[in-house]
Amino acid sequence: MIEEKENIQFELTDDLIANVELLVSKNDDKALKKLLNEFHYADVAEILDELNLEDSVYVIKLLDSETTSDILTELDEDVREKILENLSAKEIAEEIEELDTDDAADLIAELPEERQAEVISNIEDDEHRDEITELLTYDDDTAGSLMAKELVKVYETWTVAGCLRRIRGQAKEVTRVHSIYVVNKQEKLIGRLSLKDLIVAKSDHKISDIYKDSVDWVNVDDNVEDVAKVMAKYDLEAIPVVDNNQTLLGRITIDDIVDVLKEEADKDYQMAAGITGDVDSDDSIIELTRARLPWLFLGLVGGVGAFLIMEGFHEAFEKYALLFFFTPLIAAMAGNVGVQSSAIIVQGLANDDVKGSINSRLIKEMLLAALNGTILAIFLFLFVWITKSSFTTALAISISLIVVIIVAGLIGTFVPLFLDKRGIDPAIATGPFITTSNDIFGILIYFWIAKLILGI
Amino acid sequence: MIEEKENIQFELTDDLIANVELLVSKNDDKALKKLLNEFHYADVAEILDELNLEDSVYVIKLLDSETTSDILTELDEDVREKILENLSAKEIAEEIEELDTDDAADLIAELPEERQAEVISNIEDDEHRDEITELLTYDDDTAGSLMAKELVKVYETWTVAGCLRRIRGQAKEVTRVHSIYVVNKQEKLIGRLSLKDLIVAKSDHKISDIYKDSVDWVNVDDNVEDVAKVMAKYDLEAIPVVDNNQTLLGRITIDDIVDVLKEEADKDYQMAAGITGDVDSDDSIIELTRARLPWLFLGLVGGVGAFLIMEGFHEAFEKYALLFFFTPLIAAMAGNVGVQSSAIIVQGLANDDVKGSINSRLIKEMLLAALNGTILAIFLFLFVWITKSSFTTALAISISLIVVIIVAGLIGTFVPLFLDKRGIDPAIATGPFITTSNDIFGILIYFWIAKLILGI
Repeated sequence: MIEEKENIQFELTDDLIANVELLVSKNDDKALKKLLNEFHYADVAEILDELNLEDSVYVIKLLDSETTSDILTELDEDVREKILENLSAKEIAEEIEELDTDDAADLIAELPEERQAEVISNIEDDEHRDEITELLTYDDDTAGSLMAKELVKVYETWTVAGCLRRIRGQAKEVTRVHSIYVVNKQEKLIGRLSLKDLIVAKSDHKISDIYKDSVDWVNVDDNVEDVAKVMAKYDLEAIPVVDNNQTLLGRITIDDIVDVLKEEADKDYQMAAGITGDVDSDDSIIELTRARLPWLFLGLVGGVGAFLIMEGFHEAFEKYALLFFFTPLIAAMAGNVGVQSSAIIVQGLANDDVKGSINSRLIKEMLLAALNGTILAIFLFLFVWITKSSFTTALAISISLIVVIIVAGLIGTFVPLFLDKRGIDPAIATGPFITTSNDIFGILIYFWIAKLILGI
Repeated sequence: MIEEKENIQFELTDDLIANVELLVSKNDDKALKKLLNEFHYADVAEILDELNLEDSVYVIKLLDSETTSDILTELDEDVREKILENLSAKEIAEEIEELDTDDAADLIAELPEERQAEVISNIEDDEHRDEITELLTYDDDTAGSLMAKELVKVYETWTVAGCLRRIRGQAKEVTRVHSIYVVNKQEKLIGRLSLKDLIVAKSDHKISDIYKDSVDWVNVDDNVEDVAKVMAKYDLEAIPVVDNNQTLLGRITIDDIVDVLKEEADKDYQMAAGITGDVDSDDSIIELTRARLPWLFLGLVGGVGAFLIMEGFHEAFEKYALLFFFTPLIAAMAGNVGVQSSAIIVQGLANDDVKGSINSRLIKEMLLAALNGTILAIFLFLFVWITKSSFTTALAISISLIVVIIVAGLIGTFVPLFLDKRGIDPAIATGPFITTSNDIFGILIYFWIAKLILGI
């Protein structure tokens, strides 16, 4: 029984994929089953992501639905969609039977609407079907959309011994027992117990004597991000979900929250880079264009704005051509400072640690920008003065730079705070949005001040 | 015993803080204890983060070390550092006694080196002290730095009944029992069991008959990010840690991984915005300057580069001043495209889903950039042609834009892939690094091509 493994890390090699393809082409079901059953379902999903559709469907139909149901949940969304198109409603229903209610509901929700009802009607277990149907009614982004109906529930009137006996029955259905939830006769959540508490307790004790009434819970309509924050803050591995009457409806486990956190982080990262719509590097050129082009178009409009401003100052050009050669520097600095300021605020808002008033934030950012701006302006001043031997021009450009950096920092700080107050996701404010607006404001301010100082 | 709570969400109000401050100033210890004991330790930590140092120390000394040890782990790092400075080595050791080994080691690691030995020598429990001392020897960023020594371990030769009896003892020390790890006589990890398996099994069975030998594990020297990936991929809530001889050393739990994932995401987000060193919006102006100024300086150098290029083309100015007015647009587009491309690659690398060769990536990006560039160039062409009625200038600017976008996309794709191959964190390639290099390349290419087409 002892078998030492070389490494936990599964490696997806070209050889492995070629081997699977070969076995499929030879219809060598026995060898194929033997090979794939050695791997974790998440690893098999990675293999299937690389196969062509026909081969993937072959593998899915070959393996037991106990395994394939888990594989399906781990596939790339695009791949899963195509495989499901190639399965009958009855076959999909068989996969669904094996899944926990939350994964089952997620899978059904991805199907085209007309297939959903057909698949649901093919689910044989009445309770499972009703539970999945209930889960499908909750909105995306709510606790209800994340919860599973599987949980271990005991009544406060039970004894420890009776409890253990009944839990043996319930627990078989539940992959992981995190907490045992205690309810009263009206099915209202009143407390919790750990399996450990139950094992340690004397068998003739009543649940009402030993349960903990300090139980955290979320409402079924609570926002998913709030649920994630609560679970991360209190280090919870599972949290019960209740309705407005405190009736126990389900539970959310930490693995779903890990996925939520990753998705959130990916989304914010992409937003800051000017990409919308949750794409990844393997998506098609059309999908990637749809995600990227709108933000580039915003940049184009901003660039045309900058053009118009510079054209407006073109008379200054004859005497002070130098000024125009520094516009990319000014635009870059305005953009960089804006992105830095907004990123810090967006992150602070996400982590709930932006305290104090907007005014105090703005004053702090102004001092910070003034300090950074002055240091940078000294270098720029020396460069221009030494290479161009024009004290006034060097002074005009440097002072403009300081003002541009301060304004850029203020815009970068103010915009996300303002959006957040208005209930808009402040993450939208980082990246191209801030860069573009700061480019325009920066160039405008730069020419105004330079003109003022040089008396053009 | 039934107590319905209004809301799980704790709210940190000014009133609450004022109330705590008042009770501290009146030395009303009884009321203070009663008030604070109502809250979760993570909430008390939030309150202390807002108090002045003297008041925080007062509260820490007032409450039981069972509570305050947990509060300490949840405080802002800066606040914790200051509070610990105000506690004696003996007082800190008392807090440490209450903590799990992983949290204890993290807390000690934050102390100045000369205090570390003093605190450790004050820990009364020998086993706890030895375990913490062991944990302190592991490098940051390795599985060893995240693991706790607390776990439930059984020998394969034990019976189910004997096992349950002994677990009652061990489990009291372990906050959460995720898995029971099965070892052989040589203390080597050979399998696992869930508490559920144990409860469901017959009491005279032997562990060797019922344990599962498919146990995931990580090596104590494995990288933290790899551990996080494995746990997220396989939906694990805890994973055992072994040394090179497969000896069971400790376990890592999912709540630590949630923290790792959050820190990683925050770091990458800041890196993309040109901020280094894990700062937050409440840090001092000096700390924020240290995190931001180097990247701004890079932007300044880039801007000077752009200046030199434009100056090199200044002769073209007399006839085609227009060209110069479009440099901010060109620089912005080059920067935006570069950031988009690099962000997608950086994210793909982080999620391990960048497949295929560098060449196929570059070809895809080239096609994507050519498509986006052409669409944008058509708009720009129409704008210039219509407003300036110069077909050749409009054509020169638009064609340049397409080439600039393609080159920017290629640089944005290539640089992170190249850094990754060389073992450097590709996240460094997003943000100011890509923007600055693309500004320079973009402007250079723009003038070259425009000059060529216009025959200047």
